[in-house]
Amino acid sequence: MSALLLGPDGPRVGVAEGSERPGEATIALRLGGVCATDLELCKGYMGFTGVLGHEFVGEVVDHPESAWIGRRVVGDINASCGECPTCLAGRPTHCPSRTVLGILGRDGAFQHHFQLPAGNLHVVPAGVSDEAAVFVEPLAAALEILDQVHVRPTDRVVVLGLGRLGQLCARVLALTGAQVSGVGRGGRGVDRLPHGISGVSLEQADALAGADLVVDCTGHKDGLALATRLLRPRGTLVLKTTVHDTGAVPVTPWVIDELRIVGSRCGPFAPALRLLASGLVDPTPLIDGERSLSDGVAALEEAARTGVIKVVLRP
Amino acid sequence: MSALLLGPDGPRVGVAEGSERPGEATIALRLGGVCATDLELCKGYMGFTGVLGHEFVGEVVDHPESAWIGRRVVGDINASCGECPTCLAGRPTHCPSRTVLGILGRDGAFQHHFQLPAGNLHVVPAGVSDEAAVFVEPLAAALEILDQVHVRPTDRVVVLGLGRLGQLCARVLALTGAQVSGVGRGGRGVDRLPHGISGVSLEQADALAGADLVVDCTGHKDGLALATRLLRPRGTLVLKTTVHDTGAVPVTPWVIDELRIVGSRCGPFAPALRLLASGLVDPTPLIDGERSLSDGVAALEEAARTGVIKVVLRP
Repeated sequence: MSALLLGPDGPRVGVAEGSERPGEATIALRLGGVCATDLELCKGYMGFTGVLGHEFVGEVVDHPESAWIGRRVVGDINASCGECPTCLAGRPTHCPSRTVLGILGRDGAFQHHFQLPAGNLHVVPAGVSDEAAVFVEPLAAALEILDQVHVRPTDRVVVLGLGRLGQLCARVLALTGAQVSGVGRGGRGVDRLPHGISGVSLEQADALAGADLVVDCTGHKDGLALATRLLRPRGTLVLKTTVHDTGAVPVTPWVIDELRIVGSRCGPFAPALRLLASGLVDPTPLIDGERSLSDGVAALEEAARTGVIKVVLRP
Repeated sequence: MSALLLGPDGPRVGVAEGSERPGEATIALRLGGVCATDLELCKGYMGFTGVLGHEFVGEVVDHPESAWIGRRVVGDINASCGECPTCLAGRPTHCPSRTVLGILGRDGAFQHHFQLPAGNLHVVPAGVSDEAAVFVEPLAAALEILDQVHVRPTDRVVVLGLGRLGQLCARVLALTGAQVSGVGRGGRGVDRLPHGISGVSLEQADALAGADLVVDCTGHKDGLALATRLLRPRGTLVLKTTVHDTGAVPVTPWVIDELRIVGSRCGPFAPALRLLASGLVDPTPLIDGERSLSDGVAALEEAARTGVIKVVLRP
């Protein structure tokens, strides 16, 4: 019963030692997805140690309500207290005492069986494949943009960075009818964009100046300056990736041009499942590799390689 | 006919050499106000040279419509083309070919007679004194916050920096019924807050954590980090002051806490005049000194002194 563990010496396959959480649901992994955050955690982000993994589709093997057992599910990764002022104000993903699956104070999904609060689970409709459902968590994160910002069909939108999250953000933003362009460093990821979304390399990005909305998915400190350059006055910059070390940030142009900057993290699962069920978003062509859980370290290495978008793990 | 000029060697009193702008209104200065931006311009901000001054109340001495002559006026400082896509999109203060009174490509108000496009002028109601009307421009800039952000009566609001603009922002934000607190470095400016707005020193600021809205008027690069610390998840940070040199900016907390950062510059004059006419805002106790135009360099020095809020200039 192997697990992909992150210890002080880096990632390894081993046996998880986490204790059982009474009252929670237990899920058997069907398919997991490697995310850029997993690669950041391996570099020390959040100081996390334990079982990695927060993108998954699985089968319920234990649940307080027996009707759930055997159902195919995905799950919100933030486990909140439900009782504090932040939770009661309708912001449970920001609960100050939350744990986060495979990221903060809670073992993740890259093991044969793992746990989440029963209330975090969402049933996957029969018509949605495991290969699509494994994208629900990052697809929900992309939808968070539309929950935070009013994107209009007449807007010009630029997505910076065409990796795992950028590809999903571009697809979700294109649903609004807006004119969406993607920018990939060295043109990377441009060939993975679906019909109707144009892509350019970083060197050509300045031709996209005057955008109403720029989404920074670069994971690179230079993203902020480029985004600032591409926005029209009073435009909106959505920050999707956490960057450890920012250089000096162009705050004066933000004031003069009255830009809006919006930090954006986890999003709503139900609409993500609807978009997969309807086929309006099909992320499955983004899968570049599949590994077994016992081959998890190699999966992380593969996911870190230039040009690779999604690597999935099977138990 | 002296003017307060900024040249390559710094500010001096002399004779303005700007050429006449045909078709514009000509205004005789009645009272001018020294702003933090004037002090920044003297340090090289915007690379401006020419006559300083953008806060004024004056009397119209020439105007394309003769009915305006003799009227007491204030004026929008952004002179826009009115024809470009940015102007036609309803964002004239962001016109890319704009000039800005005493800031960008246009001589300012610190002289006996100066010019502005006729459409920029607003008549000052009879009940509003010159000493109040000279605050219209910065009061409008404070009101810009309410034009950009929905501030609720149940919000907790913190204003960082209790200088010229911070004092006005605190007064305007308190009109919403929100609980407004001000933070002054070393407690400066706390004693200048009106009844109903509490103030603390920088050292006590962390007690204000959990704020819904923080307005950074510090003009200091440390303001961003403090503002980030004081905001609740999904809170809003309004950037009111331009800072030349920012250090590293705390972008990762912005993403994790899903903060909104809003750059904010010039605002609407008509509501500023209404608030002065109704007496809902009385900025006149913020005037600490009055000088004549021929004593303009000393006025700049006085305005730069710690604890001094507003210095006004009379022709």
